[in-house]
Amino acid sequence: MIERNAFIGGCDGVAVIESAELIGEEPSGTMSHTLILCCQDERLAYEIFDEAMSADVKRIALVDTFQDEKFGALYAAEVLGERLYAVRLDTPGSRRGNFLRIMQEVRWELDIRGYTNVRIFISGDIDEDKILEYNDVADAYGVGTHISNSPVINFAMDIVEVDSAPLAKRGKPSGLKQLWRCPTGGQRLTTLASVETAVCPGCGEPMEPILKVRYTDGRRVIPDPSPRQIREHVIEQLKDVEL
Amino acid sequence: MIERNAFIGGCDGVAVIESAELIGEEPSGTMSHTLILCCQDERLAYEIFDEAMSADVKRIALVDTFQDEKFGALYAAEVLGERLYAVRLDTPGSRRGNFLRIMQEVRWELDIRGYTNVRIFISGDIDEDKILEYNDVADAYGVGTHISNSPVINFAMDIVEVDSAPLAKRGKPSGLKQLWRCPTGGQRLTTLASVETAVCPGCGEPMEPILKVRYTDGRRVIPDPSPRQIREHVIEQLKDVEL
Amino acid sequence: MIERNAFIGGCDGVAVIESAELIGEEPSGTMSHTLILCCQDERLAYEIFDEAMSADVKRIALVDTFQDEKFGALYAAEVLGERLYAVRLDTPGSRRGNFLRIMQEVRWELDIRGYTNVRIFISGDIDEDKILEYNDVADAYGVGTHISNSPVINFAMDIVEVDSAPLAKRGKPSGLKQLWRCPTGGQRLTTLASVETAVCPGCGEPMEPILKVRYTDGRRVIPDPSPRQIREHVIEQLKDVEL
Amino acid sequence: MIERNAFIGGCDGVAVIESAELIGEEPSGTMSHTLILCCQDERLAYEIFDEAMSADVKRIALVDTFQDEKFGALYAAEVLGERLYAVRLDTPGSRRGNFLRIMQEVRWELDIRGYTNVRIFISGDIDEDKILEYNDVADAYGVGTHISNSPVINFAMDIVEVDSAPLAKRGKPSGLKQLWRCPTGGQRLTTLASVETAVCPGCGEPMEPILKVRYTDGRRVIPDPSPRQIREHVIEQLKDVEL
Amino acid sequence: MIERNAFIGGCDGVAVIESAELIGEEPSGTMSHTLILCCQDERLAYEIFDEAMSADVKRIALVDTFQDEKFGALYAAEVLGERLYAVRLDTPGSRRGNFLRIMQEVRWELDIRGYTNVRIFISGDIDEDKILEYNDVADAYGVGTHISNSPVINFAMDIVEVDSAPLAKRGKPSGLKQLWRCPTGGQRLTTLASVETAVCPGCGEPMEPILKVRYTDGRRVIPDPSPRQIREHVIEQLKDVEL
Amino acid sequence: MIERNAFIGGCDGVAVIESAELIGEEPSGTMSHTLILCCQDERLAYEIFDEAMSADVKRIALVDTFQDEKFGALYAAEVLGERLYAVRLDTPGSRRGNFLRIMQEVRWELDIRGYTNVRIFISGDIDEDKILEYNDVADAYGVGTHISNSPVINFAMDIVEVDSAPLAKRGKPSGLKQLWRCPTGGQRLTTLASVETAVCPGCGEPMEPILKVRYTDGRRVIPDPSPRQIREHVIEQLKDVEL
Repeated sequence: MIERNAFIGGCDGVAVIESAELIGEEPSGTMSHTLILCCQDERLAYEIFDEAMSADVKRIALVDTFQDEKFGALYAAEVLGERLYAVRLDTPGSRRGNFLRIMQEVRWELDIRGYTNVRIFISGDIDEDKILEYNDVADAYGVGTHISNSPVINFAMDIVEVDSAPLAKRGKPSGLKQLWRCPTGGQRLTTLASVETAVCPGCGEPMEPILKVRYTDGRRVIPDPSPRQIREHVIEQLKDVEL
Repeated sequence: MIERNAFIGGCDGVAVIESAELIGEEPSGTMSHTLILCCQDERLAYEIFDEAMSADVKRIALVDTFQDEKFGALYAAEVLGERLYAVRLDTPGSRRGNFLRIMQEVRWELDIRGYTNVRIFISGDIDEDKILEYNDVADAYGVGTHISNSPVINFAMDIVEVDSAPLAKRGKPSGLKQLWRCPTGGQRLTTLASVETAVCPGCGEPMEPILKVRYTDGRRVIPDPSPRQIREHVIEQLKDVEL
Repeated sequence: MIERNAFIGGCDGVAVIESAELIGEEPSGTMSHTLILCCQDERLAYEIFDEAMSADVKRIALVDTFQDEKFGALYAAEVLGERLYAVRLDTPGSRRGNFLRIMQEVRWELDIRGYTNVRIFISGDIDEDKILEYNDVADAYGVGTHISNSPVINFAMDIVEVDSAPLAKRGKPSGLKQLWRCPTGGQRLTTLASVETAVCPGCGEPMEPILKVRYTDGRRVIPDPSPRQIREHVIEQLKDVEL
Repeated sequence: MIERNAFIGGCDGVAVIESAELIGEEPSGTMSHTLILCCQDERLAYEIFDEAMSADVKRIALVDTFQDEKFGALYAAEVLGERLYAVRLDTPGSRRGNFLRIMQEVRWELDIRGYTNVRIFISGDIDEDKILEYNDVADAYGVGTHISNSPVINFAMDIVEVDSAPLAKRGKPSGLKQLWRCPTGGQRLTTLASVETAVCPGCGEPMEPILKVRYTDGRRVIPDPSPRQIREHVIEQLKDVEL
Repeated sequence: MIERNAFIGGCDGVAVIESAELIGEEPSGTMSHTLILCCQDERLAYEIFDEAMSADVKRIALVDTFQDEKFGALYAAEVLGERLYAVRLDTPGSRRGNFLRIMQEVRWELDIRGYTNVRIFISGDIDEDKILEYNDVADAYGVGTHISNSPVINFAMDIVEVDSAPLAKRGKPSGLKQLWRCPTGGQRLTTLASVETAVCPGCGEPMEPILKVRYTDGRRVIPDPSPRQIREHVIEQLKDVEL
Repeated sequence: MIERNAFIGGCDGVAVIESAELIGEEPSGTMSHTLILCCQDERLAYEIFDEAMSADVKRIALVDTFQDEKFGALYAAEVLGERLYAVRLDTPGSRRGNFLRIMQEVRWELDIRGYTNVRIFISGDIDEDKILEYNDVADAYGVGTHISNSPVINFAMDIVEVDSAPLAKRGKPSGLKQLWRCPTGGQRLTTLASVETAVCPGCGEPMEPILKVRYTDGRRVIPDPSPRQIREHVIEQLKDVEL
């Protein structure tokens, strides 16, 4: 429903394969962070992607994984040359003091080396105000959460280890994590998964780990509760909430 | 989907019959404005409802159709006596200078005549802030539009004629209407349906009527456009929009 | 003094008979709520007024006593026909969510039935800002309190019982009342006059009734205190006031 | 009416002789600016006042006519010694950057010379907020305009010439004046009365003098218009006012 | 450095003699308050200055020492006649309710007596906003503290006694003072220097006098601490500061 | 003067060698961007610095030149091991969306690899509000411009080419530049220095290059103007400024 409404509202395409099929359109997208993290080297990832993909797939290089965008864009241009269609800046929020200026800098460095045809593709927390602000420099946008006009709980799926060693892109903490909850006050704490016990910073009591396995081998292992069961759980939780 | 989320979020029940079935609950509600408008007399409507409904259905009287709520509540109490479970105030927004005070007044008039057990049920443009404001007097709420947290386009379905004569509840203009659009500037105008031609108040040119019959005998008579057709229509319309 | 200043400042007339005589003008006004409350039926009140008043008195019908203004205006038009000069909306503040829209609705319902000549007269808490806001629909205003530019203590004289039974117009609580004061903290409480003792909601102690008879058979029964006596009473009362 | 309300509201006394008689109280006040201006010397005025007044009249010296209050207060103390009851600061608004500090300074200079019993009496544009602000230093207040809680047009009666020579207290322009009005645009201009013709600074056309003699030998020489005549004059004047 | 920057930024001249020499300009200025306080009479001071100074020094009379500026300006004009080049208003902040109006008043009184050529020179807490506000009336400005755009601690050097008797200009407290500090809480207190002991208004303990003689016969009697010693003193003092 | 005031106000040390000598302290600092840009590789720069510096100099590694700070900190830790005293984040403003979070991320990545003793040193646009905000994570600060409390014009000296090829740290545009001014409107434009002529984007006319050589072989080649000459130049420039 979300992808259909985004598309009929004027978006150029959608990235989720099943959504695209439901509305009778071809899915579209760019290289992923997963590829670069597995290669552990941006230049190597650009080469592998270039060799593997058919010629009609546009080469859009993610340039923000390890390097600063300015040097990442130059690496992509060196590796892919004229085949480079666009660079994608998915810069984490913590590195966006003046994002427009980062784009202008990437544009300047590409231009003074002759890569004036390479487009700039922007993603990550993009909304309608930012599009108006970035339009002078950016050529395209990947919009996620903000396509909805309800408040949303933002979450993301990230690679945090490669071959059991901690590795995550800029702006994401490395290492497998555990999420803990205090049985008394409900306080949450994130630690490395290798930590075996956690103590509540609020009350000093032991906390309980709350991550659960919901799917095994593609099958759901915890059944759905009924609406009435969910409602009772919600009302139970709200008892201790102070307005 | 909306009713399911409202219910699991803590609402006591839902009114749409099909929605209630989908979540495995009994639908619930009150008397309708249609009944009162067809009777053209509130006292008569209370009597008919009381005769027709089985004993286990609670008598909740709508008291805002023709009369002021204060006198409407007294009429309902006179007609239904101890069987009156609640009065429902669906007061139109244009009559709500100080809605809490209207409720307090209804409460006072019922109480000084001995109807201290009759509950007060409030509906119409109710949101979370108003509920906190009204809680001292109101016993229950019927929440519609504001159960969504996206912006919505508010619309309602109203009886505006009975036996071809104009009649509508307080706060709604009587008579069958036509909606006109100016082909040049897109301006809208509402007139009685009996008006045969309309002239644009902006440019002085004739306007075109835009109400269309979408269903005949329960069947849709205009087929669905594809997502791509809708998208083209949207982009076409946006051409003339100034940001 | 107030009426003289209002008149020389541009008002069209004054309603208090003695004031009009003092400035050498004819008093002017409309039907009163008292008439309608005594008749207990708006249509009957319109008929009686129409029969009793000489032909040169304009028929201005109060339409907000029991009914909603929209239906009240239609009743007045049905009863008085072409003799109806204006309808007066003295709508209580608690029923004025969007007062301009109520007027527009009355205008619409009168117009679609052919009563386009009937004027709309507005009264009740009218000030200079509201006049500018209502001018497109209202034809005349009755201004009371706000003709003064000092802060005032708003009070009104209302019929609350007819033949010893509670009855008051919309927006006014029915029944004869007593006003009580707590001798300790000065807190006030309003109850039905039939209540014989009242207990302070603040401290739980008995309260004293403070309504006094000042006139009997048209004669003042409590003499005037001197300015110095009043001053001492004021200073006495101010002792416990915290700034 | 104003003096009566001020007195019953808690003021200690009133200054207008006829008002005091009407409420049965003794009028009270201080030395006037007229005396000092006629003497053309503050020290001389203090001596004359001290000789002429009976012993039961308190010596309250106005100290702001020519000198700064600090030096004026010292002059009064030197002339009157122990008979000085209070100094009155009627400082013009244009000299009140930090009025509390001026009072503190007067207090300091009096105190270091031993006049710790001399009171400080404040007048001129005093309202309820200023009284709260000045209470630590001031001993009494003379309140004029602000005793009313309606907006007022502030005006004052001042000596501006003595023996045909220009002389006015600090903050008041010296010399007899004429007030001119432009017959076209209504613009006002103030000049010395000796100026024989005035030209409108707006349109360059001659202006007309508008000061009129209303009393001769204590008798009114222009009769009162009726309320209706005043009303017509007001409406005439309002024709050209843009809202 | 400050004078050089002020001058190259557009100021017409500087008053400190050594600063003027360093930038190769002639120093410039007006009569001082010291002269008037020593004469104890403004008219006498104007005469002495006029006799003593060479003809090429402009006669700029300070008019705010004892008198109100309005009368001070008239005294200066009477004494100096056509030789009066300008009057200087160094009005203290506590006397500047509407400083522009004081200047306009001085201008009016000079003009109606024929002194239309006398200029008005303004000093005391003048900044860039005030200059824009006063430009219609003022002819020149003496700017001190606000020539800096860092926050500054404002201090001044004033005559407070003449021949051992207390005397200070308007707005300055007369008499030699001592500054006391509470050894416990650091609170400060100012008293006459003749006061021999002071008690802390906060804690009731004796305070210590903190004024020190730094120069005797033009020589510094307390040596400079090193930067490191100052730094330690600063850090020591900051220990008890709550942020 | 600035360094002396900063030091006596509580700063721990100063970096300019001559300033340190003047106040009798040892200068202190960290590795420079110039070293890393000349090495064109952060790891190489860390090795060279470590070999060249005596053992008593603390190893503080700049980690923001090419890499993201998170990976830069890990490189420094790998190269210097236990000799690494601190990492310095001089992150450009355009990359500081949430600078505290970047520090926390560096702290996390260092900690999960055992480098819990490595300090975090922050520089670049640091002021007193930011210090309070960062204190939980940062161990030290390098404060520049904001040590002054006057408004300043911010400027910096940067390496933009190495061996005639464009190269600059993150956040700085690479390549030697020329600054052009429009002789008509004063508009400024920055281009690569290799651009031979520039056209004003405002008026289309040729612009003039305004960079001048002020020092050759350590000697000033343009003499100082006098204060009066500078003042005339300032006033000349201000002629066309609209306030």
